[in-house]
Amino acid sequence: MFALIRSRVMARSRFAGAIPGSKVCTPGASALLRHYHKPSRTASFKTLTKDDLEHFKGILPAETILATPAVGGSSDPIELEGFNADWLNKYRGNSQLVLRPKTTQEVSDILKYCNAQGIAVVPQGGNTGLVGGSVPVHDEVILSLRNMSRVRNYDELSGVLVCDAGCVLEELGNYVGERDHIMPLDLGAKGSCHIGGNVATNAGGIRFLRYGSLHGSVLGLEVVLPDGTILDNLSTLRKDNTGYDLKQLFIGSEGSLGVITGVSVITPQRSSAVNVTVLGVTSYENVQRAFALARKRCGEILSAYEFWDATCMGAVLHHQSLKNPLSAEFPFYVLIETSGSNKDHDDEKMGGLLEELLEEGIVEDGALAQDDSQIARMWTMREGIPESLAKTGATYKYDVSIPIPVLYDIVGDIAKRLESAQLYKPGESGFPVKLVCGYGHIGDGNLHLNIVAEKFEDRVTNIFEPYVYEWVKSHRGSISAEHGVGLMKRDHLEYSKSPEMLAYMKRMKEVFDPKGILNPYKVV
Amino acid sequence: MFALIRSRVMARSRFAGAIPGSKVCTPGASALLRHYHKPSRTASFKTLTKDDLEHFKGILPAETILATPAVGGSSDPIELEGFNADWLNKYRGNSQLVLRPKTTQEVSDILKYCNAQGIAVVPQGGNTGLVGGSVPVHDEVILSLRNMSRVRNYDELSGVLVCDAGCVLEELGNYVGERDHIMPLDLGAKGSCHIGGNVATNAGGIRFLRYGSLHGSVLGLEVVLPDGTILDNLSTLRKDNTGYDLKQLFIGSEGSLGVITGVSVITPQRSSAVNVTVLGVTSYENVQRAFALARKRCGEILSAYEFWDATCMGAVLHHQSLKNPLSAEFPFYVLIETSGSNKDHDDEKMGGLLEELLEEGIVEDGALAQDDSQIARMWTMREGIPESLAKTGATYKYDVSIPIPVLYDIVGDIAKRLESAQLYKPGESGFPVKLVCGYGHIGDGNLHLNIVAEKFEDRVTNIFEPYVYEWVKSHRGSISAEHGVGLMKRDHLEYSKSPEMLAYMKRMKEVFDPKGILNPYKVV
Repeated sequence: MFALIRSRVMARSRFAGAIPGSKVCTPGASALLRHYHKPSRTASFKTLTKDDLEHFKGILPAETILATPAVGGSSDPIELEGFNADWLNKYRGNSQLVLRPKTTQEVSDILKYCNAQGIAVVPQGGNTGLVGGSVPVHDEVILSLRNMSRVRNYDELSGVLVCDAGCVLEELGNYVGERDHIMPLDLGAKGSCHIGGNVATNAGGIRFLRYGSLHGSVLGLEVVLPDGTILDNLSTLRKDNTGYDLKQLFIGSEGSLGVITGVSVITPQRSSAVNVTVLGVTSYENVQRAFALARKRCGEILSAYEFWDATCMGAVLHHQSLKNPLSAEFPFYVLIETSGSNKDHDDEKMGGLLEELLEEGIVEDGALAQDDSQIARMWTMREGIPESLAKTGATYKYDVSIPIPVLYDIVGDIAKRLESAQLYKPGESGFPVKLVCGYGHIGDGNLHLNIVAEKFEDRVTNIFEPYVYEWVKSHRGSISAEHGVGLMKRDHLEYSKSPEMLAYMKRMKEVFDPKGILNPYKVV
Repeated sequence: MFALIRSRVMARSRFAGAIPGSKVCTPGASALLRHYHKPSRTASFKTLTKDDLEHFKGILPAETILATPAVGGSSDPIELEGFNADWLNKYRGNSQLVLRPKTTQEVSDILKYCNAQGIAVVPQGGNTGLVGGSVPVHDEVILSLRNMSRVRNYDELSGVLVCDAGCVLEELGNYVGERDHIMPLDLGAKGSCHIGGNVATNAGGIRFLRYGSLHGSVLGLEVVLPDGTILDNLSTLRKDNTGYDLKQLFIGSEGSLGVITGVSVITPQRSSAVNVTVLGVTSYENVQRAFALARKRCGEILSAYEFWDATCMGAVLHHQSLKNPLSAEFPFYVLIETSGSNKDHDDEKMGGLLEELLEEGIVEDGALAQDDSQIARMWTMREGIPESLAKTGATYKYDVSIPIPVLYDIVGDIAKRLESAQLYKPGESGFPVKLVCGYGHIGDGNLHLNIVAEKFEDRVTNIFEPYVYEWVKSHRGSISAEHGVGLMKRDHLEYSKSPEMLAYMKRMKEVFDPKGILNPYKVV
């Protein structure tokens, strides 16, 4: 099982090139640059001076500071490139200063000074976000948590892990894996993303179906507020009803209320048996029916139910050098994973499910992984989709929650709108839009709608924006299921939240960050 | 399975007598009355007048108002008794007005008026709390949600339930049970408690081990703020990362920030197979070892792991007319429940676990329930403990979270302190203290420490208060695991929360309830 986890990790190496500090080199990146609305710089934020740099040198060791000559330092601006740009190279700021503190106290000292001086700050974890939340918009100081990567404590009986915010998710997975547990979340970016960033963005991912939201599995947080106050709520208790659960506010606040420096999280027992199957399905209706049956037959061992369409499959088979494990092509593909404590029992449950799915005509064909490498390849089919689409062209990505019965309808709607505008014709080249496709976590009602174009351009964008948001709103969905708001969706929150909710969100921002120095221009 | 749930419910009928509106008649109640610190009435709160009653008559139908002659009404004060006193008859207020709105808009109109007039309000659900949170302290208007008890929507595919806050938990369990699901929480008070109260107090209970906290399973809330604002966040989406998750603040806020009027919650698939066993264990060390093994062997089907000591067992066998299912008496008893989708598989897993526990000498004896009525009797052993202790005498109840390895130590410590003070001698009568015992949800690190005395008196209380809180603090525990703060622990929060955390809790109160009219004297 452990070998299995590692081999799956290997399949996600696309993120290796996106580690902050190294040059980002996503194919087609040049076409993607800066095609987004950039709000004006807030004039009241202080522009950094040499004196500020001197002050930071008094707080932090020299080797943890990257400062360009523009602020009196000696770092080549290229060294800051990986911190200024996101991994898709879509969002890009112009910071001249990166601080990489090693302790919570250093974070506190930095923020206290910035708050007093009116210096804007963007906290940054693994910088694997998709909504421009983790890079500066203008010249904000980048506060990178990467030097805070220590496991503070682990209790094998309760499964409670306490660690620094800068721990890489995959490394934590390995750490608790050696102690017979797993992290309660898993996502494609695990090789680079930080647990602090996961919590700050309330990351979802493929284990959400089984282990639920971070609002449930995070037991405590250590957070530094803009004024330097350290909120110590790093509880290791599963139950603690002593007043308002303030830590919940920071889960999903995207670094705009405080900087998460420590995380306490409950880790589930590792399952000794894992089964994975990929199924070919002829209709979205049957994708739903298969889900209902999988919940019934596999109940407590169901650990993932993912789906993608034929367009995604085409891209991933092409770009990942994979073979379709099924005998034919299908409109939809489903990946089901089970994890349990008894291999024989799980095989029997999975076998029974597959038999019933075939007998009832819900699925047409299926392949059951026979070993760890087959499991890894099946997961690559699903997890390789984002990279494969990015290699195909400029990818518009919408991460939405929609009630399951109508979840896939939006893909067809968008395709039709693009066809009507003569910007797209399925299966034909020479149009500005190459692909319209969908995949996602159906069990969570979470669709990743992707539109792949030759390049980002307004005549394309205008066809589906704000239409996508209106569509989602009309079905009481969410315009951000798991990717967050960041810069991308800040001006669109009214599609998912009422004016009253938005007003109180702004009140929260005022309470915790009255000067607005933390991750400005984003979230609220 | 459905029959099973119903039979378990029957075993919890002690709450039938505590339904608000009926006369509370807990045995020994007269000894318990008003032995708690009652803060002075806030002078600035308006004392109700006939004009206020007239205003409320304009908002609500007459039959939903209970008003005594003191405020110009005609209700006999005895009719308000069940609303003014908690079910243990320990906490008691003196309200002259009970309002029972039927709609969210009525709740809004009531609060808007009260806020404008400076009238204090206590929201009340099933009034089954244990910390004095749901009854008035002085003359607060009682806002009962019991007339809001409608299921608004249920989606069987996703398992998402949307309902009014006043729905009784057991009735919701029956409703979703008929649709092959279960509620994600279950507790002894289910026959009376409301889902809104469950959420407002972040109730834990016996399914917490498997399905986790309400912070994870509540998907949305409708909340009315003191100024009448209706916060509509009644999402049915599993994933929604569009800004700060404000609803989380209301989960566990005990009605002090807003009044929850609607709840959206995810309900898990019902398991077709349930096994329950009761085990006799000779040491607390072995209670922990058995827990570790149960997690390993039963993994995904483990749905409860409860324990209690010999003293609890003595009380429950005596008062519930039950027979010990084991061949002898033991220092500790453990109840393990599994729930899964395949009876044969579960039997094999449970059988293997029991064999290993006996072979390894971790447990000495065990009984496995053979049918639903045996399952019900075993659960009564665990769930009948609170009532059995209440029948024995005046019961001091502490609900604490403590790291599992030292969880039970506090019971022995308290017993020793009472012995040293010559207030208690185990097994002997004629002392002011009759019993010192512990039981709880070991999987969650949650102990219910109970001290049963002849009566509440300072010379007894002073032995363990604030000692219990200091003990818990020194082990980084929580002075309230699942019961909440209410009136009982408001002045003790500093044992579990830092000054910084408390300061920001107060800020939250100021933001949502600037006049402090909602559930005053409690929580913060």
